[in-house]
Amino acid sequence: MAPLRVAFLGPLGSFSHQAAAESFCKVSADLQPQVSFPDAFAALQEKETDFAVIPCENSTNGSVVQTLDLLADRDGLYKDVKVCGEYYLTVHHCLMVRKGTFPGGWADYDGSITKLYTHPQAWGQCETFLTKYLKGVERQDVASTSKAAEIVSKETTERGAAIANRFAAEQHGTDILVENIEDRADNTTRFLIFRNVLDDATAHFKVEQPNLPTSEGEFALGATHKTLIAFTIDHSSPGALANALLIFKAHGLNLTSINTRPSLKKPWQYIFFVECGRTPSDKNKDAVHKALNDLRQVSETCKDLGTWEDQLSARNA
Amino acid sequence: MAPLRVAFLGPLGSFSHQAAAESFCKVSADLQPQVSFPDAFAALQEKETDFAVIPCENSTNGSVVQTLDLLADRDGLYKDVKVCGEYYLTVHHCLMVRKGTFPGGWADYDGSITKLYTHPQAWGQCETFLTKYLKGVERQDVASTSKAAEIVSKETTERGAAIANRFAAEQHGTDILVENIEDRADNTTRFLIFRNVLDDATAHFKVEQPNLPTSEGEFALGATHKTLIAFTIDHSSPGALANALLIFKAHGLNLTSINTRPSLKKPWQYIFFVECGRTPSDKNKDAVHKALNDLRQVSETCKDLGTWEDQLSARNA
Repeated sequence: MAPLRVAFLGPLGSFSHQAAAESFCKVSADLQPQVSFPDAFAALQEKETDFAVIPCENSTNGSVVQTLDLLADRDGLYKDVKVCGEYYLTVHHCLMVRKGTFPGGWADYDGSITKLYTHPQAWGQCETFLTKYLKGVERQDVASTSKAAEIVSKETTERGAAIANRFAAEQHGTDILVENIEDRADNTTRFLIFRNVLDDATAHFKVEQPNLPTSEGEFALGATHKTLIAFTIDHSSPGALANALLIFKAHGLNLTSINTRPSLKKPWQYIFFVECGRTPSDKNKDAVHKALNDLRQVSETCKDLGTWEDQLSARNA
Repeated sequence: MAPLRVAFLGPLGSFSHQAAAESFCKVSADLQPQVSFPDAFAALQEKETDFAVIPCENSTNGSVVQTLDLLADRDGLYKDVKVCGEYYLTVHHCLMVRKGTFPGGWADYDGSITKLYTHPQAWGQCETFLTKYLKGVERQDVASTSKAAEIVSKETTERGAAIANRFAAEQHGTDILVENIEDRADNTTRFLIFRNVLDDATAHFKVEQPNLPTSEGEFALGATHKTLIAFTIDHSSPGALANALLIFKAHGLNLTSINTRPSLKKPWQYIFFVECGRTPSDKNKDAVHKALNDLRQVSETCKDLGTWEDQLSARNA
């Protein structure tokens, strides 16, 4: 069997690359870096790839608006692209240098690092460590944490260090001086996994979450199925949004998140993204179908963006 | 009477400066630039300023997450700061150069501009114009559109041009070559106006919207009052969010927008920001108060963030 083709936002060594590698670690997969989210979606719509792994939300920074705008699909470019899974990646940052720079590792570090490289968002995520050990060292923003690792891997004149993930260190052959330098141990990015619903070959693939941290003291109710639905309403009609949201409750679907983006048709009108969950049973097996039918009666546009197994449901249900 | 002190996000000549100047144009106001949104909120909490004018949403880019995070007030720093008004500013960009560079204006432009300066977000908003008239010219990102105007106003060696608003041109004395170079004529930023609710002196100020564009063919129902409420719910309880949202409907409050931000207490739990409207009447004069009481029964935390007059209600109600 040919390996599954899995698209992610490059460069190699990015957090998206790591998420793609980990979520497809149990199968033979050909990981395909893309230069943008729209490129990944276009490849999927054209069946040039089998899956796309795209970040949708970070537990500290919130929703990824570029992904919501892609899901909004205002020009109808990706009508067959839907969510088929999710993957949670805990964000761990490492301090790394060119191979062989400090043979004794961090224990022997002599204070000689003169420049730091990383993605702008990572500075704030490692502030405690940087303030304690690398205060005053010049900081250079780069386009990705992976790029930062690449730069220091090739450095010859300056003594630079990069903040990037373990995956980037492996990718670019740098030496990790210190692991887990992030302020928050629970900073996690949720990726959605997409497929083309017209592609029968990928219909039965199940995303696995091999390394999800366990959490004690919470009650496991069994795996929930989550569904993502996008809709627009007539904002001139009072109560229209409340009526739309009521439909989920009426069909026993628990609202787990709501996001909005501008419709871009008219100012101050929105596309709503509602994620809802249910523990599958004989009684609610048509709940999503029925809710969508009802929603179509009260919305202007309404799109089913897919159903998948909630990877956290064993502890958050 | 001493002039009203109005805080906004600097530098001088920013869109926030313009919004502050326009929304307080009918009174004597001392406009006070602040270096960050938290500085503006802190000044208000400490009664070192009377009002703060802060962008909350753009009709094309969506919500300003920094403002939502400020409203979340996770550390309880701004407990007396509430919304008392809103102001809509249509975003118009101009191409401008150092005074006297092209005495004949755009009609005589000879293709000699070698560098463009603006805030990163403005490039995408003026793409059509730039592609048509300034294709291939080097682009330099700067921290604000106002800073771009300042740079070109002082230029001596290069022939640079800035993309900024008319207000920045007046502030820095540049010559406008072309007005309204933005792609979308309807790109509008909504600012919220905040006061300290313990400050009696500012209790009765009414924000005026002097220059709101009129829109034909829509039905005016009279001015709506909008209220912003932030709450968190127990996510482990199915239906909790739906129950909270139902309360607004039960009290005749029309949901006009919903935003969410991470709670930062626990991953995948959110702070919800719900904006709701009502056309004031004898019947619903206690609706907000009653809704808040009911919300407190089903939410973990719940905060009234203020009520104000909807400036668009005459056409969007």
